Amino acid sequence: MLFDSLPDRVTVYEVSPRDGLQNESAALDTAAKVQLVDALVSAGVPRIEVTSFVSPKWIPQLADAEALIAKLHEEGRASARYSALCPNPRGLTRVLDTSLREIAVFVSASDEHNQKNLNHTIDDTLAGMREVVHTAKNRGLFVRGCISTVWGFRSQDDVAPRRVAEIGRALRDMGCDELSLGDTMGIATPTRVRDVVVRVLDDHPAGAVSLHMHDTRGTALANVVAALELGVCSFDAAIGGLGGCPYAPGAAGNLATEDLVYMLHGMGIETGIDLDKLIAAGDVAAALVGRELPGKVHRASRAGRR
Amino acid sequence: MLFDSLPDRVTVYEVSPRDGLQNESAALDTAAKVQLVDALVSAGVPRIEVTSFVSPKWIPQLADAEALIAKLHEEGRASARYSALCPNPRGLTRVLDTSLREIAVFVSASDEHNQKNLNHTIDDTLAGMREVVHTAKNRGLFVRGCISTVWGFRSQDDVAPRRVAEIGRALRDMGCDELSLGDTMGIATPTRVRDVVVRVLDDHPAGAVSLHMHDTRGTALANVVAALELGVCSFDAAIGGLGGCPYAPGAAGNLATEDLVYMLHGMGIETGIDLDKLIAAGDVAAALVGRELPGKVHRASRAGRR
Repeated sequence: MLFDSLPDRVTVYEVSPRDGLQNESAALDTAAKVQLVDALVSAGVPRIEVTSFVSPKWIPQLADAEALIAKLHEEGRASARYSALCPNPRGLTRVLDTSLREIAVFVSASDEHNQKNLNHTIDDTLAGMREVVHTAKNRGLFVRGCISTVWGFRSQDDVAPRRVAEIGRALRDMGCDELSLGDTMGIATPTRVRDVVVRVLDDHPAGAVSLHMHDTRGTALANVVAALELGVCSFDAAIGGLGGCPYAPGAAGNLATEDLVYMLHGMGIETGIDLDKLIAAGDVAAALVGRELPGKVHRASRAGRR
Repeated sequence: MLFDSLPDRVTVYEVSPRDGLQNESAALDTAAKVQLVDALVSAGVPRIEVTSFVSPKWIPQLADAEALIAKLHEEGRASARYSALCPNPRGLTRVLDTSLREIAVFVSASDEHNQKNLNHTIDDTLAGMREVVHTAKNRGLFVRGCISTVWGFRSQDDVAPRRVAEIGRALRDMGCDELSLGDTMGIATPTRVRDVVVRVLDDHPAGAVSLHMHDTRGTALANVVAALELGVCSFDAAIGGLGGCPYAPGAAGNLATEDLVYMLHGMGIETGIDLDKLIAAGDVAAALVGRELPGKVHRASRAGRR
């Protein structure tokens, strides 16, 4: 019967401290970031991308990466498995001076987006990543390879699934331990998710593939269901739907962690997360950034309490 | 392969003129309602629930039901297939004095919700409906039987799928031509949708079942995908996500028609609707009610144009 072979358990990879806060105009101080991460850890979120080792010149909001990692790894503090974006060799040098054991590297599947975002061709970006991944693996780090605009930049038809699979193999071959496939523009639909995921799963075990869906057009959870049906059991999300849509201010970006967890639990799929505490973490996030967040469970919960 | 047997075509049943506008505090005048319906018809929306023949004492916003039907059926005006809610024999008497050929009757699957909403037990409500449906069928009307809170009132576990199937059979046996299954509280998840739909399809052809999902927790389109996989090919929606959540102001209610159509078209499923014109109809709706609507494609489109 339909849904009879869904995964029993899903891993949630939280991106709000990095992907959410880098899109906020005002930087939070390190203590505020620690407060957000603490709230997520306390809800049982198992993996968190906490910052980026990008140049503070580009993203001043995340300039405190070293201080944040040190604080989060303080003795006695409850912690989860942390990761950080690492865009280049200089970023990796900084990472290696911290206690962080996991990084994420990234490239676009759309040539146009890669040029706009990174000012390089995809091949040039892959060449630079190879160096970073090689060094990171030699130093024993876990490396996540993220592909953005997997489902297109201007429409879901402008990146061929075959091209995504090629880039996925390139990331695997340079040593990435897992892949995250991102619908950066929030334009994917379930059949197109199938087209890509089926090809990627030819080259990678399901346990090494995560989906990073945006909810810009309301399709994020429908796309998650398609991936679940194919055996994917790891999904990226951001508390309250924080961040993730620099191209269209006012539109929704990242899939909200609360929405993802609400649906998974309702389908009998375990996450190890306490939904009530997660909703409380969303309240912390909204208070810290000082604005209403777009996540639907977040909003329904707040409306219900008014 | 996954999704290989999805329907080729889906019928969209638009509820905004009734379900949307009855939840707006300020009533629109008849001309404004005609403008909204005209915009929907012009986009190719095939079926529209345009009003309710409820007592104007209860819902003054829809007191112009007769005038609206007369206006919409004026000679020379492009039109779709129209329907209206008909809560009781008195409402039916009013309907029969108009040119309307289709009504919708309704009952809750949750005892608690039926008591709160209609102040009757489910059995008493069904007895009253029987009389209305009998007369309507004798007069040659098409009758839609709507069940609300199909996926529960306080949680998705407080209404048994078996109970929904029983009520569905009661509606069929009294003469209803089709069923609409409503997730009034927006709490359903895909596996629970499967549990209910599989049972209901034991008693009704797939072509006689529509789903009315709310997006309060972001799961509406995921639930639509589950139903599509089971062969359901009719879905209720409201332009821009207008209306549908009287219990939690500020939270999202009805699934937005634009989000539904965006996903269906992206999956290669035809609706006969022009998405660009539908987005324009959403702009009309937002201008008429004078506030930002929650639909995601609606918001993304407006953000993209800013």
